[in-house]
Amino acid sequence: MPSLSLRIDFDGDGRIGPGKIALLEQIAATGSISAAGRAMNMSYKRAWQLVDEMNGMFRGELVSAQTGGKNGGGTALTPLGTALVARFRAIERAAAGAAARDLAALQTDLERP
Amino acid sequence: MPSLSLRIDFDGDGRIGPGKIALLEQIAATGSISAAGRAMNMSYKRAWQLVDEMNGMFRGELVSAQTGGKNGGGTALTPLGTALVARFRAIERAAAGAAARDLAALQTDLERP
Repeated sequence: MPSLSLRIDFDGDGRIGPGKIALLEQIAATGSISAAGRAMNMSYKRAWQLVDEMNGMFRGELVSAQTGGKNGGGTALTPLGTALVARFRAIERAAAGAAARDLAALQTDLERP
Repeated sequence: MPSLSLRIDFDGDGRIGPGKIALLEQIAATGSISAAGRAMNMSYKRAWQLVDEMNGMFRGELVSAQTGGKNGGGTALTPLGTALVARFRAIERAAAGAAARDLAALQTDLERP
């Protein structure tokens, strides 16, 4: 079946798509921007650039460096970052559900014999 | 309001997104690949490359060169090309409708003060 890939274009020039969302999810999972980048075969520099870009796009940061505490350092999503990821995944599910019939029809229209 | 931008990934490595769909629509409107490219600020070469790529992606061509007839030459979408454009636009509408509430919520979550 064909699958949808979805990007959200914000007013101005900000964009969020599956790559940035996956990076945020990896940051939440690993507690580290560099580990998240590695998990996505992305250079350390590229991962930081994307985080920096995302942190500047909205009214607040999406990723915060946490210092101190029992484990020291560590990086996490802010509530805003967590909300963005959840909304994006909800929008993907809604879009995929709404488009399922047309995607199936497209597959029939277009598939090679 | 944030807006959705949508791409369809086909089995294998074919992808169709808003740029290719707009090019097909311009070809249908102008009857010419080069005029369609110009309308999209795309080089002649790039427009032809995209058409060639799309023509090789599916079980049949999406764009056909028409020869002969009263106006000679001329290029048009095949029924398969016309169907692809219609399905893509239908999927966009369905996805945008399904995601509208979440997009509005995202705007509220994220907008700058």
